[in-house]
This record gives sequence, C-alpha cells and structure tokens, in this order.
Amino acid sequence: MLSATAQDVPVRIDRLLAFAEAILQQVGVPDEDARLTARILLDADLRGVESHGMAHLVGFYVRRIQRGQVNPRPSITVTHETASAATVDGDGGLGFVVGHHAMSHAIEKARSTGVGIVAVANSTHYGAGAHYAMIALEHDMIGLSMTTGGRLMAPPGGRGPAIGLNVLSVAAPTPCGFPYVLDMATSVVAHGKLEIAARHGEPIPEGWAIDGEGRPLTDPTKLRPGGALLPLGGTPLTGAFKGFGLALMVDILCGALSGFGTSTEIEAGRIAAHCFGALRIDAFQPLAQYHDVMRRMIEALKGAPALEGVDEIRIPGELEHALAEERRAAGRVPLHPDIIEGFRAAAEELDVPVDLTDEGAPL
Amino acid sequence: MLSATAQDVPVRIDRLLAFAEAILQQVGVPDEDARLTARILLDADLRGVESHGMAHLVGFYVRRIQRGQVNPRPSITVTHETASAATVDGDGGLGFVVGHHAMSHAIEKARSTGVGIVAVANSTHYGAGAHYAMIALEHDMIGLSMTTGGRLMAPPGGRGPAIGLNVLSVAAPTPCGFPYVLDMATSVVAHGKLEIAARHGEPIPEGWAIDGEGRPLTDPTKLRPGGALLPLGGTPLTGAFKGFGLALMVDILCGALSGFGTSTEIEAGRIAAHCFGALRIDAFQPLAQYHDVMRRMIEALKGAPALEGVDEIRIPGELEHALAEERRAAGRVPLHPDIIEGFRAAAEELDVPVDLTDEGAPL
Repeated sequence: MLSATAQDVPVRIDRLLAFAEAILQQVGVPDEDARLTARILLDADLRGVESHGMAHLVGFYVRRIQRGQVNPRPSITVTHETASAATVDGDGGLGFVVGHHAMSHAIEKARSTGVGIVAVANSTHYGAGAHYAMIALEHDMIGLSMTTGGRLMAPPGGRGPAIGLNVLSVAAPTPCGFPYVLDMATSVVAHGKLEIAARHGEPIPEGWAIDGEGRPLTDPTKLRPGGALLPLGGTPLTGAFKGFGLALMVDILCGALSGFGTSTEIEAGRIAAHCFGALRIDAFQPLAQYHDVMRRMIEALKGAPALEGVDEIRIPGELEHALAEERRAAGRVPLHPDIIEGFRAAAEELDVPVDLTDEGAPL
Repeated sequence: MLSATAQDVPVRIDRLLAFAEAILQQVGVPDEDARLTARILLDADLRGVESHGMAHLVGFYVRRIQRGQVNPRPSITVTHETASAATVDGDGGLGFVVGHHAMSHAIEKARSTGVGIVAVANSTHYGAGAHYAMIALEHDMIGLSMTTGGRLMAPPGGRGPAIGLNVLSVAAPTPCGFPYVLDMATSVVAHGKLEIAARHGEPIPEGWAIDGEGRPLTDPTKLRPGGALLPLGGTPLTGAFKGFGLALMVDILCGALSGFGTSTEIEAGRIAAHCFGALRIDAFQPLAQYHDVMRRMIEALKGAPALEGVDEIRIPGELEHALAEERRAAGRVPLHPDIIEGFRAAAEELDVPVDLTDEGAPL
C-alpha cells in the first residue's frame, strides 16, 4: 500500500500505542493482550500497510468486541497435538492474540523438531498476515502465516463471490539488511485497493473485479451486491486457476486442517481459521550456508537488467522494511484525520485520554 | 495441458512402460529406478500433462545420462536431519529417483511427528511436480512439492530472465472422488505453453512474455535470446509482485534451505533443488472431520453460480483425475507420431525392442 497522503497527520508512536492499549482495556481486553494487539496494529502502519493497521482499531475491532462478536478474554486451547503439529481453538478471541499464541507454539515445535505447523479454529480477523510470519525471523526460522478471508472472490468460470480473499504470508531472514516478506491476498488485488479507489472517487482497472453478470467492473463502489474480485491471474488465459488453486490451498490448510470450515461457508469477515508454520533453518543447513545462498540470490536480482525508469529490482518486503525503519526513527506514523477524529469520539465515549499529535513539533 | 491432438496415436500403457524401463536400463539406470522413472513419466501422460511425460524420455533424460549430465546410479544421502526436517543430497541423479526418495522420507517423518519437510540439493529435472505431492494422498496426508525451474522469468521491473520458472505443487485428499491437486509454475504460464504455440505456428497472447527490451512478446519462437516469461499476475498493476514473491518462496525453500543455490545462479534446466513436505491430517484433526469440511467446500463451489457457457466450477486436479481414470481404463495413452518415431530410432540405437501400438485394435 505505502500510500500516506498529503493530509495525513504525523502521530507519535508512543502515544498511539498507549491510546490503543487503553481503549482495548476499556472494552475488556486484558493488559497483555491489549499491548500485543496495539503493537501488531502499529506494525502494519509502520510498514505502510495502512489498510490493516490502526485505521480499523475502533470501527472494526473495538465495535466487534462491544457487539459480542469478538471474545475479549478467550480461553485459547490446544485441541490436538503431536511433536510437530497442533490445532488450536481460539475461542472467538481477537485474531491478533490467537495468532500470536499459535505462531509462538509453531516456533516452539520448530525449535525441538525442526518444523512446527499449527492450524487454528475459531479465531477472528488477525490484521496483516506478515506480522506472524515475521515472528520467525528473530529465531532464525522461516515463517508461514495463512488466513481465510472474506468471501469476495469468484472462482474461474464463476460469476459471483464463492471463496475467500484468502491470504498467504511467508518471511525468511536474509543477510542483506531487510528480510524477505511476502504478504499476498490470493486475488489480483486485496479488497483494500478497492476501498482506496472508492475513497478517491477513482475507477479501478479492468481485470481486478467483475459484476454479478461476470462483466468487468470498474466502479469500485458497485462491488456489492453480487460482484467479486478475480483470483490472482485474472482470467483463465493468464493463470486464474493458479490464484484460485492458491486460495483453496489456504482454505485447506486453515479451514480443513483445523476442522473449523473454509471461507466457502464461514461467515465472511466475522470469524476466521488460520495456519502458521515455522522452519528452523539450521535443522536443514548451517545458517551461514543459508545466508550465503540468500545473499547471492538477492545480489543476482539486484544486478539484473531493469526496465527504463526502474532504479532497481525490489525484493518483497524490502520497501516495507525501509519505511518501518524510517518511521521508527522519526517516532511517528501518519494517520488520516478521519481516523484521528474517530479516536477522539471513541475516547470520549469510553472515557480514555487521547493526546496523539504534537502539532508544530518537527518530524 | 489436456491437449491430445487428432494425429496422436494410442499407445498401450504396458508396452510403453516396458519400453521406457528397458531404455533407461540400457543407459545404466538400475532396474528399480528405471521402473519408478517410467511410472512417473507415464503418470504425467495419463493426467494429460504431456509437456512433462514420455515425450521427453529420450531427447531429454536418456541423452543427459549419455552425456554424463545426469548420474544414473546416484548415492542419495541425508546430509542434515532432525525429527521433522532433513536435507538430502541427490548426487546428480535423475530427479524422479531423488524426488521419490526425498518425498518418502518426508512422509516417514510426518508419520512419526505429524509433519515432515525435506529440502533437496544436487538433483536434476523431476518432471511434473504433482506426482510427488500426490504420494502423500494414499497416506491420508497433505503433500507439498517444489522445484527450482529454468531461469526464464523476468522480475517486476526487469527486462530479462533473472529467476526460474519455479514450481509449486500441493495435493490434498477429498472424499469427492478426486483429490485436490495444484501444480503451477509461478509464471503466468509454463514454458510448455510457448512450445505448443510454436509447434502450431500460433502467436501467444500479450501478457505472457516480454522481449529483451520489455515489450510484449507474441511470437513464441522469439523468446530466446533475451526474452522472458512474466511472473503470475503479469504486470505490477495486476499482481506481478505476487508471482515473483512465490517464485522467490520456492527458491528459498528449495535452493537456500538445502544450501545448494537458487534458480538465479544454478545452471538453468541442468540441475535443480527441490523441497517436499507432508502433513499427517489426523495429527491436526480426526480424518472424518477434515473430510466433512472438504466435502462442504467442494459442494459449495460446485453449487456456485457459473458464467454462461460454463457447465460447472472445476476444482484443481479434477479434470486431470478424470482423464487419468479414462486412460487407465482404456489401457492406452495418446502420443504424437514424432515421439514414437524418436522411440523407434532410440530403440535401434540402444538395441531395445519396441512394439508400442496395436494398430487396428479398438481403443
């Protein structure tokens, strides 16, 4: 996304975290879970993935807790377990809390056996998938994170939404100053891209979505009812069966392996199944050898001929890492004024102090 | 591919297997490995994936053994191992033999710990990736198979080939009479599609490939030198970073985890790194529960509204399974006359009997 706009307001990270924690505590989330959730939301904003960050704190997560759609104090349990495999029941808790718990469990298993895979039933929206995969990095592991998404994708040959915008994330350490991080919806674009176009009153390109009759949809405000996003690949001629196949893979590893149900049946956007994985690199290969191969791979790609106007080939995760470093150093992230206004209203409603900006202070 | 043409000749499966075994034995492949290789090649033809089947037996595999580029009697060893992870060195053997061995090892690990992941160094072309993932099916496991491919893909922003047409395959059991099987190159299309277009003297659609200057390439005979296939997604606007990211994921899990090197540096088409995985379903969930979810998922997709002219939504692997059943029942697969002619020449050269067709017999 990397899409801060001119009217965005710089917000101090420390105050934003404190506010998010406080407001989550106020609706019943235990201190530690509130801190964790605030950090994960901030992480998305730091990396420029505004569509999965603090923007949804109040309107989405806090409201769902208030409506009883998310359990603020879940009892997260392991329902099945072997040395390298487990299924976790999230008890309807915040996806952030459930996801962090399950990924940590996968990492423990990878520490002892080399590999850990944990399927998750009965969770809710977990924000940006990359966060969980990236937890593996500090353990010198490769991380995987998958989740069922809202049912808004048409299968190839279909003319309406029938499967979720399921998400696959993979993170792997490199010795090049930034990690490899893939974080992709299995559709041509994530739903957030349509929301952004709608907010700016702009059309979307042909090839992203179809209306209820299967015709190309270019007005992002007309997606519902009946329209759908296309699988990665777009049309059968350009690989749509691959995007659809990947969406099914995510559904199988999340929804079927956990026994919870897939995106074809679980209520879109309300509940979710996940799957997490960790691979301990030195179970396969000395870490130095792995790093050597990664360095050579990235150097080869950086040295490859680029198109006119392209300064260099970018590795997935590279720009997001640079942006996060920059924002961490500045101690601030940009937020849209509407979001800050929403925070003020929620702060008043829930009796939480809010003091996010330091207007006039240099960035 | 599913692309048998009118001039193809029906060939008896039993005789084809016997011929392939004999010719492989004649160039030094041990009996058991020759039998295995013949079965895997046939498997691709049965499933309609002619681009990865018997068509390449002589011109590709036998010739490479004769030239000393493939080791017919490899000593396959496990170089690193933990309870759920291993790295295998293929000693430059036929990818079929190395791949079968490594996937079997992953399945053994999954039997004992729930999950097994095996990275493979120093292998060669292993044919159709789906075969190895599908070995998991009979063990009530989900199978994964990945390989580095020939360096023919341009990264987004690049104007020449810099990364491999890396392949990802996933197989999962279903209770619906056919398994889910995804088998995809991470490019818009596999290279075989260009070969088929070239053979028919037809242009390829814009969006599949670019020439050495980054312009759309529609003449499939002009790919080399300098041209490249595009990553799944095609352009940055329609998700090319996702296809590129998936190609990198495969390279990392195959080439970096095994320490062997990625498609950015290993000699395209000659040698390969692989990665195999097996997940034992009942380590996560009772098999019956998994099957219930899979049945509901497939029924939901089959019941989804289809476009005018589309009879029903197809699940990846469904049509290939039906075709293989049909061909097994007939006891015959269609081969192009040129391939049979090549077999006759090789049979004479290597002093192997060949008697593939039963002309006049009903199919």
